[in-house]
Amino acid sequence: AATAIAINDLLNLNLTSTQLIETAAMGESASAGSPHADNVSAAILGDFTLIVSREPLEVLRLRLPPNAEFAIVLPEIRVDTRLARSVLPRQVDLSSMVYNIGRAAAFVAGIALNNVEVMGKGMMDAVVEPARAHLIPGLNHVKELALRAGAAGVAISGAGPSIIAIVDSNKKNTKDIALAMKDAFEEVGVRSKPICAKPGQGARIIRRE
Amino acid sequence: AATAIAINDLLNLNLTSTQLIETAAMGESASAGSPHADNVSAAILGDFTLIVSREPLEVLRLRLPPNAEFAIVLPEIRVDTRLARSVLPRQVDLSSMVYNIGRAAAFVAGIALNNVEVMGKGMMDAVVEPARAHLIPGLNHVKELALRAGAAGVAISGAGPSIIAIVDSNKKNTKDIALAMKDAFEEVGVRSKPICAKPGQGARIIRRE
Repeated sequence: AATAIAINDLLNLNLTSTQLIETAAMGESASAGSPHADNVSAAILGDFTLIVSREPLEVLRLRLPPNAEFAIVLPEIRVDTRLARSVLPRQVDLSSMVYNIGRAAAFVAGIALNNVEVMGKGMMDAVVEPARAHLIPGLNHVKELALRAGAAGVAISGAGPSIIAIVDSNKKNTKDIALAMKDAFEEVGVRSKPICAKPGQGARIIRRE
Repeated sequence: AATAIAINDLLNLNLTSTQLIETAAMGESASAGSPHADNVSAAILGDFTLIVSREPLEVLRLRLPPNAEFAIVLPEIRVDTRLARSVLPRQVDLSSMVYNIGRAAAFVAGIALNNVEVMGKGMMDAVVEPARAHLIPGLNHVKELALRAGAAGVAISGAGPSIIAIVDSNKKNTKDIALAMKDAFEEVGVRSKPICAKPGQGARIIRRE
């Protein structure tokens, strides 16, 4: 994503953000086996992005509540993205679909209402996460301790193995939650790196030489 | 829903809106075979409601854009709600789930962004509507003509047989779209009643005697 933005600037291509996302999405083929725009949309636009349509590509950006922060732990284990995709079920129960649609809608509604607690409830997932849980030893323990430490919600970050918790920074210290997650991994014998993050504003040109 | 509100007022029960929704949801058993809160939530709270959790019941309300209006046609055919539920698939493709989650998120994002066009895109459905299409003769024709007349989106209303289109009233006349839908039903030999609606504010006590 940053490369696409840099080349766009260097060669004065004047691509729209949608064109930049399409270009950067092709780069995802190298790591994931097929082009997809999920990650590069957010890397280019910042905040929360939603792919409304793939062809033609249409991406929305929603501004996150200022008190939404993220506690992330990167465990020292490797989960191949292709493997993480291959364990997904091809078919899901209708009731699981309804549940997940409710969660996704709640997450976006939480953004609309500036309500981090509701966003956290929207991070639950009855389909993808259960299928991938066995790839990340300690996942459920880390999730439990993150919630006990006051996270509003917690989920596998993308295809994993990182785990991401959302924190209402008006109520809790994000660093405390990141450390609780690191400790939880340690309790099951996995070393990990805690990170605190705030929503970014997307990749930007910082200097021209 | 209105009955629950009236009795609450008459007997000074001082129930919360959540308790009112729970009570009214039981009444749905009579028509649909099981209690569910989808319809009565909106009837009690007004605007757009989202059930975040069933037990305990937690319902969110989002204010709709002021230019969101609805064109509805009620065809003179009968679709039993229990039948409409029985035709649903028990399992759905993962890709259909992902598609529908994207639509639901887009619908809520459209509300957050006050963007009726995006809300309309969020009304598409790869699972439930295709399964029920055969219960409503002319469905696809009515949808097509609604979109051609300028509706932002169109879908079966609940379990049907009514069809509901969302209209950006800054751009199009809702009545024109309702009439286009009525004409479309007529072209396939189905009589129907067109209705124009704006989001309501929920059931209210209008007079005490």
